[in-house]
Amino acid sequence: MTTIRTTQSSPDAATIDLGIGQPGPDLLPLALLREATAMRLAGDDATLLSYGYELGDGYFRRALGAFLTAHYGFALDPESLMVTTGSSQGLDLICSCFTEPGDTVFVGEPTYFLALRIFADRHLRVVGLPVDEQGIVIEALEERLAAERPALLYLVPTFQNPSGATLPAERRAKLVALAEAFDFLIVADEVYQLLSYTVLPPPPLAHYDNGGRVLSVGSFSKILAPGLRLGWIQATPVQLQRIAGSGLLDSGGGLNPFTSNLVKVVLEKGWQDDYLNGLKEVYGRRVEAMATALRRELGAAADFNVPHGGFFFWVRLAPSVDTERLLPRAQAQGVGFKPGIHFSSRGALRNYMRLCFAYYDEATIATGVARLGSVFGNGV
Amino acid sequence: MTTIRTTQSSPDAATIDLGIGQPGPDLLPLALLREATAMRLAGDDATLLSYGYELGDGYFRRALGAFLTAHYGFALDPESLMVTTGSSQGLDLICSCFTEPGDTVFVGEPTYFLALRIFADRHLRVVGLPVDEQGIVIEALEERLAAERPALLYLVPTFQNPSGATLPAERRAKLVALAEAFDFLIVADEVYQLLSYTVLPPPPLAHYDNGGRVLSVGSFSKILAPGLRLGWIQATPVQLQRIAGSGLLDSGGGLNPFTSNLVKVVLEKGWQDDYLNGLKEVYGRRVEAMATALRRELGAAADFNVPHGGFFFWVRLAPSVDTERLLPRAQAQGVGFKPGIHFSSRGALRNYMRLCFAYYDEATIATGVARLGSVFGNGV
Repeated sequence: MTTIRTTQSSPDAATIDLGIGQPGPDLLPLALLREATAMRLAGDDATLLSYGYELGDGYFRRALGAFLTAHYGFALDPESLMVTTGSSQGLDLICSCFTEPGDTVFVGEPTYFLALRIFADRHLRVVGLPVDEQGIVIEALEERLAAERPALLYLVPTFQNPSGATLPAERRAKLVALAEAFDFLIVADEVYQLLSYTVLPPPPLAHYDNGGRVLSVGSFSKILAPGLRLGWIQATPVQLQRIAGSGLLDSGGGLNPFTSNLVKVVLEKGWQDDYLNGLKEVYGRRVEAMATALRRELGAAADFNVPHGGFFFWVRLAPSVDTERLLPRAQAQGVGFKPGIHFSSRGALRNYMRLCFAYYDEATIATGVARLGSVFGNGV
Repeated sequence: MTTIRTTQSSPDAATIDLGIGQPGPDLLPLALLREATAMRLAGDDATLLSYGYELGDGYFRRALGAFLTAHYGFALDPESLMVTTGSSQGLDLICSCFTEPGDTVFVGEPTYFLALRIFADRHLRVVGLPVDEQGIVIEALEERLAAERPALLYLVPTFQNPSGATLPAERRAKLVALAEAFDFLIVADEVYQLLSYTVLPPPPLAHYDNGGRVLSVGSFSKILAPGLRLGWIQATPVQLQRIAGSGLLDSGGGLNPFTSNLVKVVLEKGWQDDYLNGLKEVYGRRVEAMATALRRELGAAADFNVPHGGFFFWVRLAPSVDTERLLPRAQAQGVGFKPGIHFSSRGALRNYMRLCFAYYDEATIATGVARLGSVFGNGV
């Protein structure tokens, strides 16, 4: 008998896969969506069933602008927002409209691994830049810019996937100034910006930009529900018109008129704020649980920073360790992780692993990390 | 005061825009979706809020396979179907996975104009092939193949947009044989296949294919609701795995887990069949209304075939007429159309116009065509 698959990741019940980078299934807001849907589909307004406006439903964009304005700490005009089916599509559309095959993209090293796949499909050349605990090293970027200019620089400035690093305000300002001086665009993948558990991060990168250098991609996948496939691009109206004029948008109609109309209700009623506050509490506790377990089970074998937000711990092991090679041994112990090599643009970072604390509850995290301890712990 | 836009096309009330190629807004199935949504969101199955399986929800694909099997007249395995956000995205994904920048795409002349935009964004070179009233002329294709080989041939084999032409069975078989012999893929855009109002068309192109040459894109946009952004690709499991492995799919999770779960209910309950039957009755009457009005108002000035299905009349005027140049004059009379030049890969077809009969009711169609008569009619 064939198993019928419904979700992207479905670990067997015996495995605790800390490699999965997703919201916990126990947290998915089914009741909230049930109520918002009933509310939006009552009455006789069927516009959400039509081809949508290429930039996205105007009322949704207005609600999104108000929501982001409250959280970002600066005013966000709906005219600078367009709807996407998620941050990956946002990134892909930006590549389609603002790069040519053969162009260069700068990324940090480590970087979000699936972005590398999107760049490859768009025939872009990727150059990795050194990062430290605060993200991309500006001096290293300056050096590289003396040699070559990218079409785009891609980064996750806040609570980076995988490292959890957040770029400080001064580096943000310098990065934007360099984009201006050397004439390239920055794509800021800011899907974790609102998921802070201890200290607030600096404002999103666009706050430091007056010249239309920063395009930001955001998503409801991490703050509401991935299955809705709803995200946005924040850029200048001129840049958005260029994206809206692409063949895919022109032909396909606006992206997600249906689900954006449901989420509009969630935003307008203030339910998104309530839900986000609840998420932050839960995730904050899961961070603590994972930090405690890592210290207990791996001790001096593991080096890591406790993240202030986002989804991930980025754990460094002894230089001799190859996490990709050891993954099968961990899986035999009933635990998974994402090997560091996935986050490298050049096959490095072999002694790192990424652990997600968002998917499992605290007890399961503790059990999973204990299993990791039997593979990587001190004296093993 | 700024108008807040929600839909792709919103003609002012005074204009009858027969250029709009969309389902009639009066036909959008709001009540049906309301019921399907309430049913799917009852209970506690939250999988539709997770990242989806890259090929799409297995239960939806099973329901879709059963639905298409009943309508296509041949068995369609769910393993040969993957979910997309619509046929345009299906086409874009196929270009991403099966072409390289600089490759050649063959299309009919005329062809669906927005596909040309997608090819341009993928840096593909488009070559137009002669068509007659039955679609692509096989002998002309053979001649062209002696000179060069495309990566893809793109066509709308049934009730073509704009011409309404349907490729006969013999041409379908020959087309697939040529794809086999000359080693290229065929992308069949079959979004109108189920919308037949008089005689049934031949089966979809895949029926004639044993060698994995035909990839078909389909959509719920024309048979249920465009705003759902739900479509599919039908291809071999190996081809689908290649698409599912693309950067966008891998990063973004499956496409539309949420709306596909709602439409699953619509399919399983048989509501899609009922709704489709109703649509065909309404559209059949609108075809008649437009044919009658065109004969009455344009008489010998217009040459056209009455379409057996789909959405469009493709009207040929005297060779001296330039429909693009005359559009403003028609708009001043309160009527719009899509000029023929939009459907040409080489700036031709200036004396044609495309009229959609799906968007307006019969009385409005008659009024709109009467206005066209004042611009293009006999003796004007």
